[in-house]
Amino acid sequence: MTTAKPYPAFEDFVAGTVTTFGAYEVTREDVIAFAAEFDPQPFHLDEEAGKASLLGGLAASGWHTCSILMRLMFDHFIHGSTSIGSPGIDEVKWLKPVFPGDVLSARCEILETKPSASKPDRGMVRFRFDLMNQKGDVVMVQTNPVFFARRVAGAA
Amino acid sequence: MTTAKPYPAFEDFVAGTVTTFGAYEVTREDVIAFAAEFDPQPFHLDEEAGKASLLGGLAASGWHTCSILMRLMFDHFIHGSTSIGSPGIDEVKWLKPVFPGDVLSARCEILETKPSASKPDRGMVRFRFDLMNQKGDVVMVQTNPVFFARRVAGAA
Repeated sequence: MTTAKPYPAFEDFVAGTVTTFGAYEVTREDVIAFAAEFDPQPFHLDEEAGKASLLGGLAASGWHTCSILMRLMFDHFIHGSTSIGSPGIDEVKWLKPVFPGDVLSARCEILETKPSASKPDRGMVRFRFDLMNQKGDVVMVQTNPVFFARRVAGAA
Repeated sequence: MTTAKPYPAFEDFVAGTVTTFGAYEVTREDVIAFAAEFDPQPFHLDEEAGKASLLGGLAASGWHTCSILMRLMFDHFIHGSTSIGSPGIDEVKWLKPVFPGDVLSARCEILETKPSASKPDRGMVRFRFDLMNQKGDVVMVQTNPVFFARRVAGAA
């Protein structure tokens, strides 16, 4: 028997750890649906406009790409964890277009773990994500912190 | 007669300019639909889970909030502009929860405008956005650059 909970808490995250996960297929329908609601620039809606743009073809909104990474994060380590939420995003770089048919995976590096100084029940984990397509091209880099509850509040 | 095009180009953005715009109503259905697809943490899907969380109630995913700001940006100044796209996001801070029924508007400050050194047909405009709810609370702060084509490529 162990008293450890069966889900990752703050103490389970170790700086320097690198994992790779996910296989999210981006469809034309999803690219257009997201863009129509949130980012209806022509190159996110129409193949010809995409070809005429810097993107070189119909490509996903950068916010859609961020949201896809969130889903990969959820499926890989947020789901069933003690995640409390995130205070924000440190930085995002959109390096290459994401096209319909791309299959995205994430390389995740834990940059830092820091117990909260003021709130002994939680700690912050800072991640760097490299989102890659099926060719291995890095399409997006993102760094962001997430708060997780501690397994034992205030434990060393 | 003027040779100016009827849409904003790089030259039309002036550092220091502040505008306020938008009235985006966040619905319960939209909060849940976005979360179900991209960020299905319990506090983004369920009222009781939201009440039990730091958010204090069912609240929108931060990525949903970012996407709503993108839509406000599009409607206010991207649509019909010479926007080429954005290289990324400098920073996002999620300061307060966004709840169903909230009506969001944006305060937009132009922090910087910079002609591209290597590509004379474009320039970068860096924005700071304060996203506010109907009570005037700032729920999110974001800074990010956008590239716009120049009205006259390489003009001084």
